[in-house]
Amino acid sequence: MEHNESPEGDKALKIIPLGGLGEIGLNMMVIEYGGDAIIIDAGLMFPEDYMLGIDIVIPSMDYIKQNASRILAVILTHAHEDHIGALPYLLKEVDIPVYGTSFTLGVVRRKLEEQAGLGSSSLNVFHAGELLRIGPFEVDPIRVSHSTVDGVGLAVRTPRGVIVHTGDFKINLSGKESTMTDVNSFARYGEKGVLALLSDSTNVEKHGYTISDSEVADSLRRIAFDAEGRIVVALFASNVARIQQIVDIAEMKGCKVVFCGRSVELTVKIARELGYLQIPAGMELDIRRSNDFPANRLILITTGSQGEPMSALARMAAGNHKHIKIRKDDTIVFSSKIIPGNEKAIAGIINTIYRLGANVVYEKTAPVHVSGHAHQEELKTMMHLTRPRYFIPIHGEYRHLVHHSRLAQSAGIPEENVVLAENGDIITFDDDGARLDGKVPTGRVLVDGKGVGDVGRSVLKERQMLAEDGLVVVTIVFDEETGVIVYGPEIVSRGFVFWTATGHLLDDAQCVILEVVEEIGMDAPNRTDLIRSKIQKALRQYFNFTIKRRPIIVPVIMEL
Amino acid sequence: MEHNESPEGDKALKIIPLGGLGEIGLNMMVIEYGGDAIIIDAGLMFPEDYMLGIDIVIPSMDYIKQNASRILAVILTHAHEDHIGALPYLLKEVDIPVYGTSFTLGVVRRKLEEQAGLGSSSLNVFHAGELLRIGPFEVDPIRVSHSTVDGVGLAVRTPRGVIVHTGDFKINLSGKESTMTDVNSFARYGEKGVLALLSDSTNVEKHGYTISDSEVADSLRRIAFDAEGRIVVALFASNVARIQQIVDIAEMKGCKVVFCGRSVELTVKIARELGYLQIPAGMELDIRRSNDFPANRLILITTGSQGEPMSALARMAAGNHKHIKIRKDDTIVFSSKIIPGNEKAIAGIINTIYRLGANVVYEKTAPVHVSGHAHQEELKTMMHLTRPRYFIPIHGEYRHLVHHSRLAQSAGIPEENVVLAENGDIITFDDDGARLDGKVPTGRVLVDGKGVGDVGRSVLKERQMLAEDGLVVVTIVFDEETGVIVYGPEIVSRGFVFWTATGHLLDDAQCVILEVVEEIGMDAPNRTDLIRSKIQKALRQYFNFTIKRRPIIVPVIMEL
Repeated sequence: MEHNESPEGDKALKIIPLGGLGEIGLNMMVIEYGGDAIIIDAGLMFPEDYMLGIDIVIPSMDYIKQNASRILAVILTHAHEDHIGALPYLLKEVDIPVYGTSFTLGVVRRKLEEQAGLGSSSLNVFHAGELLRIGPFEVDPIRVSHSTVDGVGLAVRTPRGVIVHTGDFKINLSGKESTMTDVNSFARYGEKGVLALLSDSTNVEKHGYTISDSEVADSLRRIAFDAEGRIVVALFASNVARIQQIVDIAEMKGCKVVFCGRSVELTVKIARELGYLQIPAGMELDIRRSNDFPANRLILITTGSQGEPMSALARMAAGNHKHIKIRKDDTIVFSSKIIPGNEKAIAGIINTIYRLGANVVYEKTAPVHVSGHAHQEELKTMMHLTRPRYFIPIHGEYRHLVHHSRLAQSAGIPEENVVLAENGDIITFDDDGARLDGKVPTGRVLVDGKGVGDVGRSVLKERQMLAEDGLVVVTIVFDEETGVIVYGPEIVSRGFVFWTATGHLLDDAQCVILEVVEEIGMDAPNRTDLIRSKIQKALRQYFNFTIKRRPIIVPVIMEL
Repeated sequence: MEHNESPEGDKALKIIPLGGLGEIGLNMMVIEYGGDAIIIDAGLMFPEDYMLGIDIVIPSMDYIKQNASRILAVILTHAHEDHIGALPYLLKEVDIPVYGTSFTLGVVRRKLEEQAGLGSSSLNVFHAGELLRIGPFEVDPIRVSHSTVDGVGLAVRTPRGVIVHTGDFKINLSGKESTMTDVNSFARYGEKGVLALLSDSTNVEKHGYTISDSEVADSLRRIAFDAEGRIVVALFASNVARIQQIVDIAEMKGCKVVFCGRSVELTVKIARELGYLQIPAGMELDIRRSNDFPANRLILITTGSQGEPMSALARMAAGNHKHIKIRKDDTIVFSSKIIPGNEKAIAGIINTIYRLGANVVYEKTAPVHVSGHAHQEELKTMMHLTRPRYFIPIHGEYRHLVHHSRLAQSAGIPEENVVLAENGDIITFDDDGARLDGKVPTGRVLVDGKGVGDVGRSVLKERQMLAEDGLVVVTIVFDEETGVIVYGPEIVSRGFVFWTATGHLLDDAQCVILEVVEEIGMDAPNRTDLIRSKIQKALRQYFNFTIKRRPIIVPVIMEL
């Protein structure tokens, strides 16, 4: 059906995921037709445990660079880092217009300003329901519910048919209409015919439906009204709808609201300016005045929901926040997901708060949070609304993509029309239907400080070894002519053993070194190289034998 | 009531937790009366994320050492590392008899033999229901259900009354009687009067009851009978009852069983020898013969349920196991908890297996595992069975102890009779009742290789810095008389930047160093010290400015 509508029926439509298919994060995808291309999202990933010292990870831009001249635009689905975090790096490679909703671009604008020289990038606000023409594509942004405001899915009309990309979504049908997924628009595309549905797989392992946002609001309201002291709510700054819920509760209870932590303050500023957050006049209280106010008339909204050690909440709990200290009658609410990997840090803060005698409410003890990603029944709803010919699971680790493929089949999409693709696969749609047809280069680029891609496997391996057992530097200077030691062996260690324990250990290590030197004749060829490698080997054996550790050994051997 | 029965009514009973109250792991507790003391459990903890390079953590033995002469015995509740892992270190400090059930001591015996010189420790097997007299104490081990076999709780009869210590438990009343908690014995103590209940808090945040072990067995059986290829079950080696369930299923299906991985093989050996595991003759198959056998007649039981990179399962998935490679028609079952902190490693293996085309079943997709720790309703059952005068939550982080205290109050134990104690608290029972009365020294000792306690805060801090940004060693030799540089500056880095990226960066760093040296006069006092500290400062600034990294800088400055 689609290719009959196409004026260029012989041309293929290509969907090329560059990140996010096989991992959580790094979401970036190219859609190509007849020599033109658009990009959907440019996200980052936070480093894996083994990526020591790495700040963020971005997708490789190799394919983008190779095809820079053909790329017409980048379209952003929402303001989360795993969808916009690589944008500054993308825009360094290609100077293209950026499209997004008003809140998304509000966040992006600040991000680009912080990175020198990118303030002038062309940011174009679109609104859900407004059709956007870019080359051979017509892009129709459709409102979706997610854990940040103003998110959209995209219906991309191409000469080969309509591609529906859900972005990150869940089907919330409670609360304000602006926070609901626009199921009607998705259904309308389903009526007209959808070539392929690309759908968010993050929560495919979760049964049933996400609980509704109003259930969370009810729970937060109960907690707020029951509490006799201050309420401190920790959340993700980007969750503007949650902030609004809390502001609404504050209004009901007659409370002042205090915003704590840089990212909360910034997001509130952007969201208020753009009309996404309504705070009654006089309700916001400067943090410096918060201690003058009755405790049961105060709600604090703060960063630190993931136990980040330098966050406002962590400092309040540790007693070194400038203005706020946790007190016995406080109620602290973690209104956020516990992200895997952060459990111990979060548990640490919860334990600290309990020790201070305050009360804590979190996901495990009350429904104070709901995920922004659709559960199984919602995912099936999206399939039934859009009735796609082809189904392509996106946004997930490989296991999520597998489970989402199975779910699609259980929902009636034929196995041969489910495309299980990974990063770099070229998903081609032509007269013969859809298939995987070749690969483009993809990869992960590590960003450490200002360095992009200058830390790789070998450096990480060294950091791992240093982290495990530290290092030992051995310095010896030989007289160039006589071959006699004129300085050293001097041994310096870092991260190896506690200094009071080093004495005898390092004294003996010196003897080991001297024995090695003695064994090597004065006129051995390449004497310093030989000494260097023999010292390394001997010390490795010695430390392994005596204390079962393997520090990195750096011999500095000189002939002067 | 209790003190009337006591021949030494004026003497106080003391319970002193040395570990496990305020953390998961490190379980160790002292019970004292009239100058005599016994220890319950001696457990380790696996290192926290920030404890780089640390192998295990054990409780400080300071209090034990100070009171060595008064300690009569150590009694073990079950064979898990968080209850027996510190025993070799305890026995190095005090030469006391060890009591435990037959399986627990089977595991302990091997553990002690592996540590030189401890093979002769006196191990004494007791059986549930057999009263043990130790000084003023009578210890009555009561069978409890847990995720390893032969676990017990302890009723400790003292002149002041009966202390009930649950060990780690859940109330399983399905399957074989030997795997059930002996609720009758607990109830019998409840009838006679219990002074204090010390109860496992690990799962106090979980509502309802644990699912029954037979539900897990049903689920495993369904999976085994549905599978057309091999079944590979990954589990904790110590979960002997689970291994028995799988062996039983293998018998029903007519399968051979293969044991893979050192800890599984060892546990199976101990459990079979002691009669805890019944394997029909001819069922066990040597791993080397497994590929000669039809796939649908094979069940493999393996280590690696936590994604450990060197485990048998990880090697099978990576394709470098000597005998087994995962194939398309295999079904891999993770019949184990996903321990927080291990999610990413486990997810990595699951993704890899899916990529190989095999099927995977895990906690999130089917009921193939159940926790060994009681949920809320079971915890309340224990309170009602034992009807204690005092309640003391044990085994948990502080938040677990708080929640367990609240649960006890909701179950009718008066607030003033709930004792929320932490490590080191002396919980004293005398004529006036129970109270916290002082503190003893406690702490965590880090074990790294053969070193016990020689890695502390400062070494970990250095390892953290090395892990983040690596290090740079700068070597310069000056002529002692002229003050002129005769060697260097030579710069060596590890874990800092990728070598191809270092060229220009380190060339410029050399210039920075030379400038520093030039600025310092030839006859500056303490010239080498001054140069050392100025180089550190200058390089720190330079690297921070150019690439925003903070490597450790080690200047080796010599005058020769």
